[in-house]
Amino acid sequence: MGTVQVPIGLICCNMATRTYEGIKIDINGVLPVTDPLTVEEALQIGINGKPFTLTMRTPGADEELIRGMLHCEAVLNDPHFHPEVVLRKENEQGIVTEVNLQVPEALLGIGYSNSRSLLSVSSCGICGKTELGQQGFEGPALEGTTRFPAAIFTEMFARMNQRQHDFNQSGGTHAAAIFDADGQLLVAREDIGRHNAVDKAVGRLLLDGRLSRACAMTVSGRISYEITIKAFKAGIPFLAAVSAPSSLAVDYAKELGITLLGFCREGRATCYSHPERITNPRAAATRTKASRHV
Amino acid sequence: MGTVQVPIGLICCNMATRTYEGIKIDINGVLPVTDPLTVEEALQIGINGKPFTLTMRTPGADEELIRGMLHCEAVLNDPHFHPEVVLRKENEQGIVTEVNLQVPEALLGIGYSNSRSLLSVSSCGICGKTELGQQGFEGPALEGTTRFPAAIFTEMFARMNQRQHDFNQSGGTHAAAIFDADGQLLVAREDIGRHNAVDKAVGRLLLDGRLSRACAMTVSGRISYEITIKAFKAGIPFLAAVSAPSSLAVDYAKELGITLLGFCREGRATCYSHPERITNPRAAATRTKASRHV
Repeated sequence: MGTVQVPIGLICCNMATRTYEGIKIDINGVLPVTDPLTVEEALQIGINGKPFTLTMRTPGADEELIRGMLHCEAVLNDPHFHPEVVLRKENEQGIVTEVNLQVPEALLGIGYSNSRSLLSVSSCGICGKTELGQQGFEGPALEGTTRFPAAIFTEMFARMNQRQHDFNQSGGTHAAAIFDADGQLLVAREDIGRHNAVDKAVGRLLLDGRLSRACAMTVSGRISYEITIKAFKAGIPFLAAVSAPSSLAVDYAKELGITLLGFCREGRATCYSHPERITNPRAAATRTKASRHV
Repeated sequence: MGTVQVPIGLICCNMATRTYEGIKIDINGVLPVTDPLTVEEALQIGINGKPFTLTMRTPGADEELIRGMLHCEAVLNDPHFHPEVVLRKENEQGIVTEVNLQVPEALLGIGYSNSRSLLSVSSCGICGKTELGQQGFEGPALEGTTRFPAAIFTEMFARMNQRQHDFNQSGGTHAAAIFDADGQLLVAREDIGRHNAVDKAVGRLLLDGRLSRACAMTVSGRISYEITIKAFKAGIPFLAAVSAPSSLAVDYAKELGITLLGFCREGRATCYSHPERITNPRAAATRTKASRHV
């Protein structure tokens, strides 16, 4: 059976949501509705002709997703080498998209060595690893000297929210946004998988040669330990989430030199590691109070 | 180095949250806090001496998690055979717990054949599978004839909420609850991973020989396609979520005969597949209206 080669340009447009018919039941009674839902499809990634991983993701930014995943999972060591991404689908209705990447062996990192014979879900972070020690985060803790006033995180989340176009339609996507040392938004991305949203955002900056400017990352939802690892691999010393971190996310943040904030909502935030990088918390509080009355 | 054998009885008690120190910033200023966070640790599962999967989970109900996962991932075909679960940790502080299950070869299903040489994260549903067609959900669509009035789902979610002890403490767990044909709660479970919460709930019923009574499942958060597959494998024809389903979750629900409801909150719900099993939606609406004023 022949495959369909899918130009990245085409696949990038309006593929994140799809309309479904439903029956809505509420206090007004029963109503037929058509709702946009987040698209979830499979991306099967091979490296140098061998199966590498299979991930469920929202299509539309696969080059970013792949590039960010290769970096954040320590599969590809060179941030300047970008393998060509040619997507193939069995047919236009298929839910599996395939890609085979050509990567010089010398550039392959520990994340490839640990899993090159495995098929797994990269978005989990841990997939394909035999031990937790093989996460590819060897190396010194982050020592970024950038500091942020606590108030700026409220603004960062507001900026990320403005870019959550798919979530606003479907309610079904996670988001990640990355900011520079001045708190300016560099990139924001969405995906059905929270890890994929991070990979896409990191991948975009890598493809643009701007990852070195990344200083802080905000994510919707919770922080599990994989997100902390991804922030570390991307060299981002601030990580802030709308919801709760896990125990392991905090343990690794402490060890890896990451300032981790959880429960960033309604003018509040709790810092669980390396609070020395947060400045002016009192000013932040005042500012937050004011913003709540806007 | 010797390992520590961990009695299941011991590991079941109060292991789901752990207290962390933090700095809370809000309109009142800055306050040192100690917050319970959801514990996230690794469980490495071997079958008959070979590595099978590595999953990140909240410890405390590992026998349920393992038993449910084996069933929902089509690894173990016999619902009456329960392999002995003996947990081992390298030391008491370690974050990796190991277990080796002895399962007669004749009982191993397609989920084992597809991934027995792989290390992956089972909670993802898709891990270790080479193709989406190998999910172990061959067989006819569910034809359960039980019907539920729409109003009952509001009550089901209320019942599940009452059991979300870890979430109420930590804000970091997902929940799943399973109900019988009368809408009575059979089991509710929590975990850092939404798939694990489902596996634990199904596992508990399997261990008790009560899975055949399961008619409906509620889950916190969103529904990705793996949750639909797990409901199918557990033979549960009603699946209801607080938040959004993905496109693939709905596609499979239609194909597998599952009545799928999303956005079940604040007295509303939207049914995306097999609405013929929902009765009295108008009564539901009235009842919901009343309950909003309680």
